[in-house]
Amino acid sequence: MTDPTSLEARVRDSFDRQATMALIGARLAYVGKGEVTLELPFDARLTQQHGFLHAGISSTLMDTAAGYAAYTLMPAEAEVLTVEFKVNLLRPAKGALFQATGRVLKPGRSLMVVEARLVAAEAPDRPLALLNATMMVVLDRPDVAPASKL
Amino acid sequence: MTDPTSLEARVRDSFDRQATMALIGARLAYVGKGEVTLELPFDARLTQQHGFLHAGISSTLMDTAAGYAAYTLMPAEAEVLTVEFKVNLLRPAKGALFQATGRVLKPGRSLMVVEARLVAAEAPDRPLALLNATMMVVLDRPDVAPASKL
Amino acid sequence: MTDPTSLEARVRDSFDRQATMALIGARLAYVGKGEVTLELPFDARLTQQHGFLHAGISSTLMDTAAGYAAYTLMPAEAEVLTVEFKVNLLRPAKGALFQATGRVLKPGRSLMVVEARLVAAEAPDRPLALLNATMMVVLDRPDVAPASKL
Amino acid sequence: MTDPTSLEARVRDSFDRQATMALIGARLAYVGKGEVTLELPFDARLTQQHGFLHAGISSTLMDTAAGYAAYTLMPAEAEVLTVEFKVNLLRPAKGALFQATGRVLKPGRSLMVVEARLVAAEAPDRPLALLNATMMVVLDRPDVAPASKL
Repeated sequence: MTDPTSLEARVRDSFDRQATMALIGARLAYVGKGEVTLELPFDARLTQQHGFLHAGISSTLMDTAAGYAAYTLMPAEAEVLTVEFKVNLLRPAKGALFQATGRVLKPGRSLMVVEARLVAAEAPDRPLALLNATMMVVLDRPDVAPASKL
Repeated sequence: MTDPTSLEARVRDSFDRQATMALIGARLAYVGKGEVTLELPFDARLTQQHGFLHAGISSTLMDTAAGYAAYTLMPAEAEVLTVEFKVNLLRPAKGALFQATGRVLKPGRSLMVVEARLVAAEAPDRPLALLNATMMVVLDRPDVAPASKL
Repeated sequence: MTDPTSLEARVRDSFDRQATMALIGARLAYVGKGEVTLELPFDARLTQQHGFLHAGISSTLMDTAAGYAAYTLMPAEAEVLTVEFKVNLLRPAKGALFQATGRVLKPGRSLMVVEARLVAAEAPDRPLALLNATMMVVLDRPDVAPASKL
Repeated sequence: MTDPTSLEARVRDSFDRQATMALIGARLAYVGKGEVTLELPFDARLTQQHGFLHAGISSTLMDTAAGYAAYTLMPAEAEVLTVEFKVNLLRPAKGALFQATGRVLKPGRSLMVVEARLVAAEAPDRPLALLNATMMVVLDRPDVAPASKL
Protein backbone atom coordinates (compact mmCIF):
# COMPACT_ATOMS: atom_id res chain seq x y z
CA MET A 1 0.00 0.00 0.00
CA THR A 2 3.03 2.29 0.13
CA ASP A 3 3.39 1.87 -3.64
CA PRO A 4 1.50 4.84 -5.08
CA THR A 5 0.69 2.95 -8.26
CA SER A 6 -0.97 0.13 -6.41
CA LEU A 7 -2.73 2.57 -4.09
CA GLU A 8 -4.31 4.30 -7.04
CA ALA A 9 -5.10 0.95 -8.70
CA ARG A 10 -6.88 -0.20 -5.56
CA VAL A 11 -9.01 2.95 -5.38
CA ARG A 12 -9.69 2.88 -9.11
CA ASP A 13 -10.83 -0.73 -8.97
CA SER A 14 -13.41 0.12 -6.31
CA PHE A 15 -14.39 3.40 -7.98
CA ASP A 16 -15.04 1.62 -11.26
CA ARG A 17 -17.53 -0.67 -9.51
CA GLN A 18 -19.64 2.32 -8.40
CA ALA A 19 -22.33 2.49 -11.07
CA THR A 20 -23.42 5.88 -9.75
CA MET A 21 -20.07 7.43 -10.68
CA ALA A 22 -20.53 6.34 -14.30
CA LEU A 23 -24.13 7.53 -14.33
CA ILE A 24 -23.25 11.06 -13.28
CA GLY A 25 -20.02 11.21 -15.27
CA ALA A 26 -17.55 11.50 -12.36
CA ARG A 27 -13.92 10.52 -12.75
CA LEU A 28 -11.02 9.88 -10.41
CA ALA A 29 -8.60 12.78 -10.80
CA TYR A 30 -6.08 12.30 -7.98
CA VAL A 31 -5.23 9.63 -5.40
CA GLY A 32 -2.70 10.29 -2.63
CA LYS A 33 -2.32 8.93 0.87
CA GLY A 34 -5.22 10.45 2.78
CA GLU A 35 -6.42 12.62 -0.11
CA VAL A 36 -8.55 11.93 -3.17
CA THR A 37 -9.97 14.30 -5.80
CA LEU A 38 -12.90 13.53 -8.09
CA GLU A 39 -13.99 15.61 -11.07
CA LEU A 40 -17.43 16.04 -12.53
CA PRO A 41 -18.18 18.02 -15.70
CA PHE A 42 -21.39 20.05 -15.50
CA ASP A 43 -24.31 18.18 -17.02
CA ALA A 44 -27.84 19.57 -17.28
CA ARG A 45 -29.20 16.17 -16.20
CA LEU A 46 -27.71 16.77 -12.72
CA THR A 47 -29.49 20.00 -11.86
CA GLN A 48 -32.13 21.09 -9.38
CA GLN A 49 -35.07 23.35 -10.19
CA HIS A 50 -32.94 26.49 -10.62
CA GLY A 51 -30.40 24.96 -12.98
CA PHE A 52 -27.58 24.53 -10.43
CA LEU A 53 -25.93 21.23 -9.58
CA HIS A 54 -28.32 19.38 -7.26
CA ALA A 55 -27.23 19.43 -3.60
CA GLY A 56 -27.62 15.66 -3.61
CA ILE A 57 -25.18 15.29 -6.50
CA SER A 58 -22.73 17.64 -4.79
CA SER A 59 -23.05 15.43 -1.72
CA THR A 60 -22.64 12.23 -3.74
CA LEU A 61 -19.38 13.52 -5.18
CA MET A 62 -18.03 14.78 -1.83
CA ASP A 63 -19.07 11.61 0.04
CA THR A 64 -17.28 9.46 -2.53
CA ALA A 65 -14.12 11.59 -2.46
CA ALA A 66 -14.16 11.49 1.35
CA GLY A 67 -14.72 7.74 1.44
CA TYR A 68 -11.80 7.02 -0.88
CA ALA A 69 -9.55 9.43 1.02
CA ALA A 70 -10.18 7.26 4.09
CA TYR A 71 -9.79 4.08 2.03
CA THR A 72 -6.22 5.05 1.07
CA LEU A 73 -5.22 4.79 4.74
CA MET A 74 -6.93 1.45 5.37
CA PRO A 75 -5.39 -2.02 5.19
CA ALA A 76 -5.52 -3.53 1.69
CA GLU A 77 -8.19 -6.04 2.70
CA ALA A 78 -10.54 -3.46 4.21
CA GLU A 79 -13.68 -1.96 2.76
CA VAL A 80 -14.98 1.52 3.56
CA LEU A 81 -18.49 2.48 4.61
CA THR A 82 -19.93 5.90 5.38
CA VAL A 83 -21.34 6.08 8.91
CA GLU A 84 -22.62 9.66 8.68
CA PHE A 85 -21.90 12.98 7.04
CA LYS A 86 -22.91 16.61 7.22
CA VAL A 87 -23.03 18.97 4.27
CA ASN A 88 -23.01 22.78 4.28
CA LEU A 89 -24.03 24.43 1.02
CA LEU A 90 -22.18 27.73 0.75
CA ARG A 91 -22.95 29.00 -2.74
CA PRO A 92 -25.02 27.97 -5.75
CA ALA A 93 -23.13 25.15 -7.48
CA LYS A 94 -22.40 26.84 -10.79
CA GLY A 95 -19.46 25.88 -12.98
CA ALA A 96 -18.25 23.95 -16.00
CA LEU A 97 -16.15 21.45 -14.05
CA PHE A 98 -16.60 20.54 -10.40
CA GLN A 99 -13.84 19.16 -8.19
CA ALA A 100 -14.43 17.40 -4.88
CA THR A 101 -11.40 16.78 -2.69
CA GLY A 102 -11.60 14.50 0.32
CA ARG A 103 -8.96 14.65 3.05
CA VAL A 104 -8.53 12.58 6.21
CA LEU A 105 -8.53 14.70 9.36
CA LYS A 106 -8.09 11.84 11.82
CA PRO A 107 -7.20 8.30 10.81
CA GLY A 108 -8.08 5.42 13.11
CA ARG A 109 -8.30 1.66 13.37
CA SER A 110 -12.07 1.44 13.18
CA LEU A 111 -13.28 4.95 12.33
CA MET A 112 -11.82 7.86 10.37
CA VAL A 113 -12.92 11.50 10.35
CA VAL A 114 -12.76 12.99 6.88
CA GLU A 115 -13.68 16.27 5.23
CA ALA A 116 -14.38 17.19 1.63
CA ARG A 117 -14.87 20.43 -0.24
CA LEU A 118 -16.47 21.08 -3.59
CA VAL A 119 -15.22 23.82 -5.91
CA ALA A 120 -15.67 24.86 -9.51
CA ALA A 121 -12.32 24.42 -11.28
CA GLU A 122 -12.47 28.01 -12.47
CA ALA A 123 -12.74 29.38 -8.89
CA PRO A 124 -10.82 26.99 -6.65
CA ASP A 125 -10.70 29.41 -3.72
CA ARG A 126 -14.46 29.78 -3.40
CA PRO A 127 -15.80 26.52 -1.98
CA LEU A 128 -19.34 25.71 -3.07
CA ALA A 129 -19.99 23.12 -0.40
CA LEU A 130 -18.30 21.37 2.51
CA LEU A 131 -18.75 17.85 3.86
CA ASN A 132 -17.60 16.35 7.13
CA ALA A 133 -17.92 12.59 7.60
CA THR A 134 -17.22 9.56 9.74
CA MET A 135 -16.02 6.55 7.75
CA MET A 136 -15.86 2.98 9.02
CA VAL A 137 -13.05 0.51 8.35
CA VAL A 138 -14.80 -2.76 7.49
CA LEU A 139 -12.76 -5.94 7.90
CA ASP A 140 -13.59 -9.64 7.51
CA ARG A 141 -17.01 -9.06 6.01
CA PRO A 142 -17.49 -10.82 2.69
CA ASP A 143 -20.94 -9.29 2.52
CA VAL A 144 -19.80 -5.81 3.58
CA ALA A 145 -23.02 -5.15 5.41
CA PRO A 146 -23.00 -1.99 7.48
CA ALA A 147 -26.09 -3.17 9.37
CA SER A 148 -24.22 -5.97 11.02
CA LYS A 149 -21.27 -3.71 11.69
CA LEU A 150 -23.05 -0.77 13.24
CA MET B 1 -52.15 27.12 -0.59
CA THR B 2 -54.85 25.57 1.61
CA ASP B 3 -56.23 23.89 -1.49
CA PRO B 4 -54.54 20.49 -1.49
CA THR B 5 -54.76 20.26 -5.27
CA SER B 6 -52.92 23.49 -5.81
CA LEU B 7 -50.41 22.60 -3.10
CA GLU B 8 -49.55 19.39 -4.89
CA ALA B 9 -49.52 21.18 -8.25
CA ARG B 10 -47.06 23.74 -6.93
CA VAL B 11 -44.71 21.06 -5.60
CA ARG B 12 -45.07 18.98 -8.75
CA ASP B 13 -44.25 21.93 -10.96
CA SER B 14 -40.98 22.50 -9.11
CA PHE B 15 -40.22 18.78 -8.85
CA ASP B 16 -40.64 18.36 -12.60
CA ARG B 17 -37.97 21.01 -13.18
CA GLN B 18 -35.40 18.99 -11.21
CA ALA B 19 -33.52 17.12 -13.93
CA THR B 20 -31.82 14.97 -11.30
CA MET B 21 -35.15 13.45 -10.26
CA ALA B 22 -35.78 12.30 -13.83
CA LEU B 23 -32.24 10.99 -14.17
CA ILE B 24 -32.51 8.73 -11.13
CA GLY B 25 -36.14 7.79 -11.73
CA ALA B 26 -37.66 9.37 -8.61
CA ARG B 27 -41.34 10.29 -8.49
CA LEU B 28 -43.54 12.36 -6.21
CA ALA B 29 -45.73 9.95 -4.24
CA TYR B 30 -47.43 12.13 -1.62
CA VAL B 31 -47.77 15.84 -0.87
CA GLY B 32 -49.38 17.07 2.34
CA LYS B 33 -48.90 20.17 4.45
CA GLY B 34 -45.48 19.75 6.00
CA GLU B 35 -44.92 16.24 4.63
CA VAL B 36 -43.77 14.91 1.27
CA THR B 37 -42.92 11.37 0.15
CA LEU B 38 -40.80 10.47 -2.87
CA GLU B 39 -40.38 7.01 -4.35
CA LEU B 40 -37.44 5.54 -6.20
CA PRO B 41 -37.42 2.08 -7.77
CA PHE B 42 -34.12 0.24 -7.36
CA ASP B 43 -31.89 0.69 -10.39
CA ALA B 44 -28.45 -0.92 -10.79
CA ARG B 45 -27.15 2.38 -12.20
CA LEU B 46 -27.59 3.95 -8.75
CA THR B 47 -25.38 1.61 -6.75
CA GLN B 48 -22.09 1.88 -4.92
CA GLN B 49 -19.30 -0.69 -5.07
CA HIS B 50 -21.18 -3.35 -3.08
CA GLY B 51 -24.39 -3.18 -5.08
CA PHE B 52 -26.44 -1.17 -2.56
CA LEU B 53 -28.07 2.17 -3.29
CA HIS B 54 -25.30 4.80 -3.16
CA ALA B 55 -25.35 6.89 0.03
CA GLY B 56 -25.29 9.96 -2.19
CA ILE B 57 -28.45 8.87 -3.99
CA SER B 58 -30.13 8.10 -0.67
CA SER B 59 -29.19 11.60 0.41
CA THR B 60 -30.40 13.16 -2.84
CA LEU B 61 -33.80 11.57 -2.36
CA MET B 62 -34.06 12.52 1.32
CA ASP B 63 -32.84 16.09 0.74
CA THR B 64 -35.44 16.57 -1.98
CA ALA B 65 -38.26 15.13 0.13
CA ALA B 66 -37.20 17.33 3.04
CA GLY B 67 -36.96 20.44 0.86
CA TYR B 68 -40.44 19.97 -0.56
CA ALA B 69 -41.89 19.23 2.87
CA ALA B 70 -40.64 22.69 3.90
CA TYR B 71 -41.85 24.19 0.62
CA THR B 72 -45.44 23.16 1.38
CA LEU B 73 -45.42 25.51 4.38
CA MET B 74 -43.91 28.47 2.55
CA PRO B 75 -45.73 31.37 0.88
CA ALA B 76 -46.67 30.64 -2.73
CA GLU B 77 -44.05 33.05 -4.08
CA ALA B 78 -41.18 31.57 -2.08
CA GLU B 79 -38.42 29.26 -3.25
CA VAL B 80 -36.67 26.73 -1.02
CA LEU B 81 -32.93 26.23 -0.62
CA THR B 82 -31.05 23.72 1.50
CA VAL B 83 -28.73 25.42 3.99
CA GLU B 84 -27.26 22.22 5.44
CA PHE B 85 -28.11 18.62 6.21
CA LYS B 86 -26.78 15.65 8.11
CA VAL B 87 -27.26 12.05 7.08
CA ASN B 88 -26.95 8.90 9.21
CA LEU B 89 -26.72 5.64 7.31
CA LEU B 90 -28.28 2.92 9.44
CA ARG B 91 -28.39 -0.15 7.21
CA PRO B 92 -27.30 -1.16 3.70
CA ALA B 93 -29.83 0.36 1.29
CA LYS B 94 -31.29 -2.83 -0.17
CA GLY B 95 -34.79 -2.99 -1.61
CA ALA B 96 -36.93 -2.99 -4.73
CA LEU B 97 -38.62 0.34 -4.02
CA PHE B 98 -37.29 3.10 -1.78
CA GLN B 99 -39.44 5.70 -0.07
CA ALA B 100 -38.13 8.96 1.38
CA THR B 101 -40.49 10.95 3.57
CA GLY B 102 -39.67 14.48 4.62
CA ARG B 103 -41.45 16.11 7.55
CA VAL B 104 -41.18 19.62 8.98
CA LEU B 105 -40.15 19.63 12.63
CA LYS B 106 -40.16 23.41 13.08
CA PRO B 107 -41.57 25.84 10.54
CA GLY B 108 -40.37 29.43 10.50
CA ARG B 109 -40.42 32.64 8.54
CA SER B 110 -36.87 32.42 7.24
CA LEU B 111 -35.63 28.94 8.22
CA MET B 112 -37.29 25.56 8.71
CA VAL B 113 -35.94 22.46 10.43
CA VAL B 114 -36.91 19.30 8.59
CA GLU B 115 -36.19 15.60 8.88
CA ALA B 116 -36.42 12.77 6.37
CA ARG B 117 -36.20 9.00 6.58
CA LEU B 118 -35.50 6.45 3.89
CA VAL B 119 -37.10 3.01 3.95
CA ALA B 120 -37.56 0.11 1.59
CA ALA B 121 -41.29 -0.23 0.87
CA GLU B 122 -41.16 -3.89 1.89
CA ALA B 123 -39.82 -3.03 5.38
CA PRO B 124 -41.25 0.36 6.32
CA ASP B 125 -40.37 0.00 10.00
CA ARG B 126 -36.64 -0.43 9.44
CA PRO B 127 -35.23 2.94 8.36
CA LEU B 128 -32.21 2.69 6.10
CA ALA B 129 -31.09 6.27 6.56
CA LEU B 130 -32.08 9.49 8.32
CA LEU B 131 -31.57 13.10 7.30
CA ASN B 132 -31.92 16.26 9.35
CA ALA B 133 -31.80 19.60 7.52
CA THR B 134 -32.16 23.36 7.70
CA MET B 135 -34.11 24.83 4.79
CA MET B 136 -34.21 28.50 3.84
CA VAL B 137 -37.29 30.40 2.69
CA VAL B 138 -36.12 32.46 -0.29
CA LEU B 139 -38.24 35.50 -1.20
CA ASP B 140 -37.86 38.25 -3.78
CA ARG B 141 -34.91 36.64 -5.55
CA PRO B 142 -35.50 36.19 -9.27
CA ASP B 143 -32.06 34.58 -9.46
CA VAL B 144 -32.60 32.38 -6.37
CA ALA B 145 -28.96 32.58 -5.46
CA PRO B 146 -28.17 31.13 -2.05
CA ALA B 147 -24.78 32.86 -2.07
CA SER B 148 -26.33 36.27 -1.84
CA LYS B 149 -28.85 35.05 0.70
CA LEU B 150 -26.48 33.38 3.09
CA MET C 1 -28.78 -6.28 32.38
CA THR C 2 -32.43 -7.28 31.97
CA ASP C 3 -32.98 -6.40 35.62
CA PRO C 4 -34.26 -2.82 35.51
CA THR C 5 -32.86 -2.08 38.93
CA SER C 6 -29.36 -3.07 37.99
CA LEU C 7 -29.67 -1.26 34.68
CA GLU C 8 -30.50 1.96 36.47
CA ALA C 9 -27.78 1.33 39.04
CA ARG C 10 -25.21 0.90 36.29
CA VAL C 11 -26.22 4.13 34.61
CA ARG C 12 -26.40 5.99 37.91
CA ASP C 13 -22.95 4.82 38.90
CA SER C 14 -21.46 6.26 35.72
CA PHE C 15 -23.62 9.39 35.86
CA ASP C 16 -22.45 10.11 39.39
CA ARG C 17 -18.84 10.09 38.18
CA GLN C 18 -19.55 12.91 35.71
CA ALA C 19 -18.46 16.02 37.58
CA THR C 20 -20.07 18.20 34.94
CA MET C 21 -23.53 16.88 35.82
CA ALA C 22 -23.07 17.96 39.43
CA LEU C 23 -21.69 21.34 38.38
CA ILE C 24 -24.72 22.21 36.28
CA GLY C 25 -27.24 20.56 38.63
CA ALA C 26 -28.50 17.81 36.29
CA ARG C 27 -30.11 14.67 37.66
CA LEU C 28 -31.05 11.28 36.28
CA ALA C 29 -34.85 11.19 36.00
CA TYR C 30 -35.58 7.98 34.06
CA VAL C 31 -33.64 4.95 32.84
CA GLY C 32 -35.21 2.38 30.52
CA LYS C 33 -33.81 0.08 27.90
CA GLY C 34 -32.76 2.38 25.09
CA GLU C 35 -34.16 5.51 26.70
CA VAL C 36 -32.85 7.88 29.37
CA THR C 37 -34.21 11.22 30.63
CA LEU C 38 -32.19 13.84 32.48
CA GLU C 39 -33.60 16.89 34.23
CA LEU C 40 -32.00 20.27 34.81
CA PRO C 41 -33.59 23.08 36.82
CA PHE C 42 -33.05 26.52 35.32
CA ASP C 43 -30.08 28.27 36.87
CA ALA C 44 -28.94 31.78 35.99
CA ARG C 45 -25.32 30.55 36.01
CA LEU C 46 -26.08 28.47 32.89
CA THR C 47 -27.23 31.26 30.58
CA GLN C 48 -25.93 32.93 27.45
CA GLN C 49 -25.93 36.68 26.81
CA HIS C 50 -29.72 36.94 26.42
CA GLY C 51 -30.60 35.05 29.58
CA PHE C 52 -31.61 31.76 27.95
CA LEU C 53 -30.00 28.39 28.69
CA HIS C 54 -26.67 28.34 26.81
CA ALA C 55 -26.74 26.20 23.67
CA GLY C 56 -23.65 24.44 24.98
CA ILE C 57 -25.44 23.46 28.20
CA SER C 58 -28.45 22.27 26.20
CA SER C 59 -26.03 20.17 24.17
CA THR C 60 -24.25 18.87 27.26
CA LEU C 61 -27.54 17.65 28.68
CA MET C 62 -28.74 16.08 25.41
CA ASP C 63 -25.36 14.45 24.67
CA THR C 64 -25.34 12.89 28.13
CA ALA C 65 -28.93 11.63 27.84
CA ALA C 66 -28.15 10.20 24.40
CA GLY C 67 -24.96 8.54 25.60
CA TYR C 68 -26.68 6.80 28.50
CA ALA C 69 -29.58 5.72 26.30
CA ALA C 70 -26.99 3.88 24.18
CA TYR C 71 -25.22 2.62 27.29
CA THR C 72 -28.39 0.82 28.46
CA LEU C 73 -28.17 -1.42 25.39
CA MET C 74 -24.45 -2.20 25.74
CA PRO C 75 -22.84 -5.18 27.45
CA ALA C 76 -22.26 -4.61 31.17
CA GLU C 77 -18.49 -4.35 30.70
CA ALA C 78 -18.69 -1.72 27.95
CA GLU C 79 -18.07 1.98 28.17
CA VAL C 80 -19.73 4.56 25.93
CA LEU C 81 -18.04 7.35 24.00
CA THR C 82 -19.55 10.01 21.78
CA VAL C 83 -18.15 9.86 18.23
CA GLU C 84 -20.07 12.87 16.89
CA PHE C 85 -23.33 14.74 17.30
CA LYS C 86 -25.39 17.42 15.62
CA VAL C 87 -27.62 19.88 17.40
CA ASN C 88 -30.49 21.94 16.00
CA LEU C 89 -31.69 24.80 18.18
CA LEU C 90 -35.39 25.31 17.55
CA ARG C 91 -36.50 27.84 20.10
CA PRO C 92 -34.94 29.97 22.87
CA ALA C 93 -34.34 27.66 25.82
CA LYS C 94 -36.67 29.25 28.34
CA GLY C 95 -38.19 27.31 31.22
CA ALA C 96 -38.08 26.47 34.89
CA LEU C 97 -37.17 22.80 34.42
CA PHE C 98 -35.54 21.30 31.34
CA GLN C 99 -35.84 17.66 30.33
CA ALA C 100 -33.55 15.93 27.86
CA THR C 101 -34.60 12.49 26.64
CA GLY C 102 -32.22 10.29 24.68
CA ARG C 103 -33.51 7.39 22.62
CA VAL C 104 -31.65 4.77 20.59
CA LEU C 105 -32.68 4.75 16.93
CA LYS C 106 -30.36 1.95 15.82
CA PRO C 107 -28.44 -0.27 18.21
CA GLY C 108 -25.30 -2.02 17.01
CA ARG C 109 -22.30 -4.00 18.14
CA SER C 110 -19.76 -1.22 17.73
CA LEU C 111 -21.81 1.92 16.98
CA MET C 112 -25.27 3.15 17.95
CA VAL C 113 -27.30 5.94 16.42
CA VAL C 114 -29.16 7.93 19.06
CA GLU C 115 -31.34 11.03 19.18
CA ALA C 116 -32.24 13.38 22.01
CA ARG C 117 -34.71 16.20 22.44
CA LEU C 118 -34.79 18.99 24.96
CA VAL C 119 -38.06 20.38 26.28
CA ALA C 120 -39.22 22.62 29.10
CA ALA C 121 -41.32 20.51 31.46
CA GLU C 122 -44.14 23.03 31.19
CA ALA C 123 -44.36 22.65 27.40
CA PRO C 124 -43.36 19.08 26.56
CA ASP C 125 -44.73 19.23 23.02
CA ARG C 126 -42.57 22.13 21.93
CA PRO C 127 -39.00 20.85 21.60
CA LEU C 128 -36.36 23.49 22.27
CA ALA C 129 -33.51 21.58 20.67
CA LEU C 130 -32.74 18.27 18.97
CA LEU C 131 -29.57 16.20 18.96
CA ASN C 132 -28.58 13.31 16.74
CA ALA C 133 -25.46 11.33 17.63
CA THR C 134 -23.23 8.36 16.92
CA MET C 135 -22.10 6.55 20.07
CA MET C 136 -19.28 4.01 20.26
CA VAL C 137 -19.32 0.79 22.28
CA VAL C 138 -15.91 0.65 23.95
CA LEU C 139 -14.74 -2.78 25.11
CA ASP C 140 -11.52 -4.04 26.66
CA ARG C 141 -10.06 -0.57 27.21
CA PRO C 142 -9.03 0.04 30.81
CA ASP C 143 -7.98 3.52 29.76
CA VAL C 144 -11.14 4.17 27.74
CA ALA C 145 -9.26 6.30 25.26
CA PRO C 146 -11.28 7.26 22.21
CA ALA C 147 -8.09 8.25 20.38
CA SER C 148 -6.89 4.70 20.22
CA LYS C 149 -10.35 3.46 19.33
CA LEU C 150 -11.16 5.83 16.49
CA MET D 1 -16.24 48.15 13.65
CA THR D 2 -12.96 48.44 11.73
CA ASP D 3 -11.37 49.71 14.92
CA PRO D 4 -9.89 46.56 16.49
CA THR D 5 -10.25 48.00 19.96
CA SER D 6 -13.96 48.58 19.60
CA LEU D 7 -14.39 45.22 17.90
CA GLU D 8 -12.84 43.48 20.87
CA ALA D 9 -14.81 45.67 23.27
CA ARG D 10 -18.05 44.71 21.56
CA VAL D 11 -17.27 41.00 21.77
CA ARG D 12 -16.04 41.30 25.34
CA ASP D 13 -19.19 43.11 26.40
CA SER D 14 -21.34 40.26 25.10
CA PHE D 15 -18.98 37.56 26.39
CA ASP D 16 -19.08 39.04 29.88
CA ARG D 17 -22.87 38.68 29.89
CA GLN D 18 -22.62 34.91 29.31
CA ALA D 19 -22.90 33.49 32.80
CA THR D 20 -21.88 30.07 31.50
CA MET D 21 -18.44 31.36 30.53
CA ALA D 22 -17.82 32.53 34.10
CA LEU D 23 -19.13 29.27 35.53
CA ILE D 24 -16.72 27.11 33.54
CA GLY D 25 -13.81 29.57 33.78
CA ALA D 26 -13.46 30.44 30.08
CA ARG D 27 -11.82 33.66 28.97
CA LEU D 28 -11.57 35.60 25.75
CA ALA D 29 -8.01 35.22 24.45
CA TYR D 30 -8.09 36.71 20.95
CA VAL D 31 -10.55 38.70 18.83
CA GLY D 32 -9.87 39.41 15.14
CA LYS D 33 -12.13 39.97 12.18
CA GLY D 34 -13.70 36.58 11.53
CA GLU D 35 -11.66 34.75 14.18
CA VAL D 36 -11.99 34.40 17.94
CA THR D 37 -10.07 32.25 20.42
CA LEU D 38 -11.29 31.27 23.88
CA GLU D 39 -9.20 29.61 26.59
CA LEU D 40 -10.30 27.28 29.34
CA PRO D 41 -8.00 25.95 32.06
CA PHE D 42 -8.63 22.31 32.95
CA ASP D 43 -10.92 21.98 35.94
CA ALA D 44 -11.95 18.69 37.51
CA ARG D 45 -15.52 20.01 37.82
CA LEU D 46 -15.81 19.93 34.00
CA THR D 47 -15.09 16.24 33.43
CA GLN D 48 -17.05 13.24 32.26
CA GLN D 49 -16.92 9.79 33.84
CA HIS D 50 -13.35 9.02 32.66
CA GLY D 51 -11.81 12.27 33.86
CA PHE D 52 -11.56 13.99 30.46
CA LEU D 53 -13.17 17.32 29.60
CA HIS D 54 -16.88 16.61 29.00
CA ALA D 55 -17.85 16.61 25.31
CA GLY D 56 -20.59 19.06 26.20
CA ILE D 57 -18.09 21.51 27.70
CA SER D 58 -15.84 21.13 24.66
CA SER D 59 -18.89 21.93 22.55
CA THR D 60 -19.87 24.88 24.72
CA LEU D 61 -16.43 26.41 24.27
CA MET D 62 -16.31 25.76 20.51
CA ASP D 63 -19.89 27.00 19.94
CA THR D 64 -19.11 30.22 21.78
CA ALA D 65 -15.84 30.79 19.89
CA ALA D 66 -17.64 30.11 16.60
CA GLY D 67 -20.52 32.43 17.49
CA TYR D 68 -18.23 35.33 18.33
CA ALA D 69 -16.14 34.75 15.21
CA ALA D 70 -19.34 35.31 13.22
CA TYR D 71 -20.31 38.25 15.45
CA THR D 72 -17.11 40.11 14.50
CA LEU D 73 -18.36 40.26 10.90
CA MET D 74 -21.87 41.41 11.75
CA PRO D 75 -23.22 44.99 11.87
CA ALA D 76 -22.72 46.64 15.27
CA GLU D 77 -26.44 46.47 16.07
CA ALA D 78 -26.77 42.74 15.31
CA GLU D 79 -27.00 39.86 17.71
CA VAL D 80 -25.79 36.33 16.94
CA LEU D 81 -27.72 33.08 17.43
CA THR D 82 -26.62 29.52 16.76
CA VAL D 83 -28.93 27.78 14.28
CA GLU D 84 -27.19 24.39 14.38
CA PHE D 85 -23.79 22.79 14.86
CA LYS D 86 -22.05 19.48 14.46
CA VAL D 87 -19.22 18.25 16.64
CA ASN D 88 -16.67 15.52 15.90
CA LEU D 89 -14.71 14.28 18.89
CA LEU D 90 -11.29 13.19 17.68
CA ARG D 91 -9.32 12.42 20.82
CA PRO D 92 -9.88 12.35 24.59
CA ALA D 93 -9.86 15.95 25.76
CA LYS D 94 -6.80 15.85 28.00
CA GLY D 95 -4.75 18.94 28.77
CA ALA D 96 -3.94 21.70 31.23
CA LEU D 97 -5.23 24.53 29.06
CA PHE D 98 -7.75 24.19 26.24
CA GLN D 99 -8.04 26.61 23.33
CA ALA D 100 -11.06 26.85 21.04
CA THR D 101 -10.66 28.93 17.90
CA GLY D 102 -13.66 29.85 15.78
CA ARG D 103 -13.21 31.00 12.19
CA VAL D 104 -15.78 32.17 9.63
CA LEU D 105 -15.78 30.05 6.47
CA LYS D 106 -18.54 31.93 4.67
CA PRO D 107 -19.92 35.28 5.84
CA GLY D 108 -23.40 36.33 4.76
CA ARG D 109 -26.15 38.85 5.37
CA SER D 110 -28.45 36.53 7.27
CA LEU D 111 -26.45 33.34 7.89
CA MET D 112 -22.75 32.57 8.38
CA VAL D 113 -20.96 29.24 8.19
CA VAL D 114 -18.31 28.91 10.87
CA GLU D 115 -15.91 26.25 12.10
CA ALA D 116 -14.09 25.82 15.39
CA ARG D 117 -11.38 23.52 16.64
CA LEU D 118 -10.38 22.60 20.15
CA VAL D 119 -6.77 21.91 21.08
CA ALA D 120 -4.72 21.54 24.22
CA ALA D 121 -2.24 24.43 24.34
CA GLU D 122 0.60 21.96 24.77
CA ALA D 123 -0.24 20.13 21.51
CA PRO D 124 -1.72 22.70 19.13
CA ASP D 125 -1.35 20.49 16.06
CA ARG D 126 -3.48 17.66 17.41
CA PRO D 127 -7.10 18.83 17.41
CA LEU D 128 -9.23 17.25 20.11
CA ALA D 129 -12.55 18.18 18.57
CA LEU D 130 -14.02 20.03 15.60
CA LEU D 131 -17.25 21.99 15.29
CA ASN D 132 -19.04 23.24 12.20
CA ALA D 133 -21.96 25.62 12.64
CA THR D 134 -24.53 27.88 11.03
CA MET D 135 -24.93 31.22 12.81
CA MET D 136 -27.79 33.66 12.30
CA VAL D 137 -27.48 37.44 12.09
CA VAL D 138 -30.32 38.79 14.24
CA LEU D 139 -31.41 42.37 13.58
CA ASP D 140 -34.17 44.55 15.00
CA ARG D 141 -35.14 42.11 17.73
CA PRO D 142 -35.11 43.68 21.17
CA ASP D 143 -36.14 40.31 22.55
CA VAL D 144 -33.59 38.36 20.48
CA ALA D 145 -35.89 35.42 20.22
CA PRO D 146 -34.68 32.73 17.84
CA ALA D 147 -38.14 31.18 17.82
CA SER D 148 -39.65 34.12 16.06
CA LYS D 149 -36.69 34.38 13.72
CA LEU D 150 -36.48 30.78 12.59
